[in-house]
Amino acid sequence: MEIPAQWIRGGTSKCWVFEDSDIAATGHGPDDLLPRIFGSPDHRQIDGVGGASSTTSKAMILTKPQEDDLDVIFRFAQVGIEEPVVDWGSNCGNCSTTAGLYAVENGWVELAQDVTVVRTYNTNTGQRIIQRIPTPGGSLPAALQAHIPGTVHPGHEVGLGFVDPAGKTTGRLLPTGQARSTLQIDGRGFPVTLIDAGAPAVFLPAAAVELAEVAHKDWSDAVGPMLGTLDALRRAAAVAMGMAESPGQAERAVPKLGIVGPPRHEDADLEVLMLSMGAPHPAMPITGGVAVTTAAFTPGTFPHELARDATSGSVAPDGVRKLRLATPAGGIVTFFDESGTDLVVGADRTARRLATSTLYLPDSL
Amino acid sequence: MEIPAQWIRGGTSKCWVFEDSDIAATGHGPDDLLPRIFGSPDHRQIDGVGGASSTTSKAMILTKPQEDDLDVIFRFAQVGIEEPVVDWGSNCGNCSTTAGLYAVENGWVELAQDVTVVRTYNTNTGQRIIQRIPTPGGSLPAALQAHIPGTVHPGHEVGLGFVDPAGKTTGRLLPTGQARSTLQIDGRGFPVTLIDAGAPAVFLPAAAVELAEVAHKDWSDAVGPMLGTLDALRRAAAVAMGMAESPGQAERAVPKLGIVGPPRHEDADLEVLMLSMGAPHPAMPITGGVAVTTAAFTPGTFPHELARDATSGSVAPDGVRKLRLATPAGGIVTFFDESGTDLVVGADRTARRLATSTLYLPDSL
Repeated sequence: MEIPAQWIRGGTSKCWVFEDSDIAATGHGPDDLLPRIFGSPDHRQIDGVGGASSTTSKAMILTKPQEDDLDVIFRFAQVGIEEPVVDWGSNCGNCSTTAGLYAVENGWVELAQDVTVVRTYNTNTGQRIIQRIPTPGGSLPAALQAHIPGTVHPGHEVGLGFVDPAGKTTGRLLPTGQARSTLQIDGRGFPVTLIDAGAPAVFLPAAAVELAEVAHKDWSDAVGPMLGTLDALRRAAAVAMGMAESPGQAERAVPKLGIVGPPRHEDADLEVLMLSMGAPHPAMPITGGVAVTTAAFTPGTFPHELARDATSGSVAPDGVRKLRLATPAGGIVTFFDESGTDLVVGADRTARRLATSTLYLPDSL
Repeated sequence: MEIPAQWIRGGTSKCWVFEDSDIAATGHGPDDLLPRIFGSPDHRQIDGVGGASSTTSKAMILTKPQEDDLDVIFRFAQVGIEEPVVDWGSNCGNCSTTAGLYAVENGWVELAQDVTVVRTYNTNTGQRIIQRIPTPGGSLPAALQAHIPGTVHPGHEVGLGFVDPAGKTTGRLLPTGQARSTLQIDGRGFPVTLIDAGAPAVFLPAAAVELAEVAHKDWSDAVGPMLGTLDALRRAAAVAMGMAESPGQAERAVPKLGIVGPPRHEDADLEVLMLSMGAPHPAMPITGGVAVTTAAFTPGTFPHELARDATSGSVAPDGVRKLRLATPAGGIVTFFDESGTDLVVGADRTARRLATSTLYLPDSL
């Protein structure tokens, strides 16, 4: 059995990208096929193309749509490592960039003279994502010059814009109807902002967890002793946002939790530390970036109160406002664009095609 | 820049296999090219095809030889992960199998009706390795059925035979001229066999380190408290074999050290635990397997004394004798073949091609 695929580094992930027709041609469904292709179940994925870590055991399945207003429909697959299963429950922002780059490199869109816009739709989350890839003179540049924190090597710039990201999970931008709430954990009240944009998220000010005087670069270490309390807060937030009936029933991936503080250096507008699956995230999950950015431009929230000039700054001529986030791995610039019919919130990432491949499997899997 | 390559799982490693002419065509040397292809320097190798572990950051460079008595000349590259460097200092037995399978799958040899023999030569070590791959009816079987410990999935069987493996490092099979010696560590004498076959190695009986009454499956844990003493023994052995002037100057990778004991189950001829880079090896490095097998068929050595019927057993009609080694990960069968002009010692592994690829890099690296 031979299966065409491309391997693309998207943001800080590596993703194997398939066309749905090539998957269908195998006669196997992706739930059976992908784990075997990746070498699962095996913690080393030694007999497959998986990278034996959560950020390198990812696949994308692309469909060329019939709709005139879309260029790519994609489905994201988190491929299990120790277990031969596929988790379809969420999208991956980093891998999303591979749909845009694939469309540009494989003739799914006509390249513009300056920036090519690829209109994508993620089926895991029902989210439209507009991608902007520089194509000066109508082609991808041969020299790669775009950098992001978390990757050593440069790539093609891919701007990811989440279209109308508010309320996708809970139905409302502010699920409790309030920009600020107080959550009680062990008899102590914690001030928080609960917001649903990109992903449902809870943000609390650094001062509420004694991080106001701690240098931002030390936050990841400093939160170690309070991870239990922070997860309890996250679970209480799930209940407050109507996502779980009790803290114990809250999902592990969402809501996301972030700590925010005022900028202490000129090159940032807001200091942030996100937690991911119970641990400090080295940089910023893209959906978390959408949430904190939307909050920073929403009056009354803690990110809005703490960010530099979040509302007083004048809107750029093209209507796009930028936010410079300080993350543990370095600075990330996000954008908030109210200039069109729909709100678009997102960030610039980079992507690079690593390989065009024919993958082999025995016919009987 | 586009570089053809195949990704092959060889034994318990994954190796990217290149033809030397394709490397040369890039205009870059492999010391510059391979780390960039693999995504180094980066502990996650996120912008390249490396797997971010020692067993998945390996490359092979194959040359089609002019010589009539060879089918493949190969050079093994251990590609650095955190550092953008290539280590050419040793061969990898697991990756060696990919040279044989590549030759069979890419028309470098004519396929025989039963077993195709591929005559390979490793330039890192100056070692000829005869590879035997079943090709019933003159083709590779479509169904994969060969299994080895350490991989979940089956592959093509590849028999690796090290030709004339004795004395490649020290010049003699028994570097001290004796099948048994005693090494002094902290005033205590340890009985050992020092042998140079496949790799220089020191073997000591389980009884000498109080493992005679410990179940073989528990040896890996039981040696924990004595790893310091065992490394001191290994370094003393390096001096005794003339490989180092003092224990402190001994290399870390060689000599290898193994503990051997008599079989306690019907399905094994010898119980073995090898140490690799200071830690218990989960299975058996192939060169270590060559060393212990050669010792088991060399009268006077401890492996010979402890192995079941190592010399009393009659030689098979084809002149090939087999040894069943119990390793922590399971049983491995090795062979010792004195029937031809040269002694050939080795073991059966499995290999499977995962992908045929075009790899991409920016022209300027």
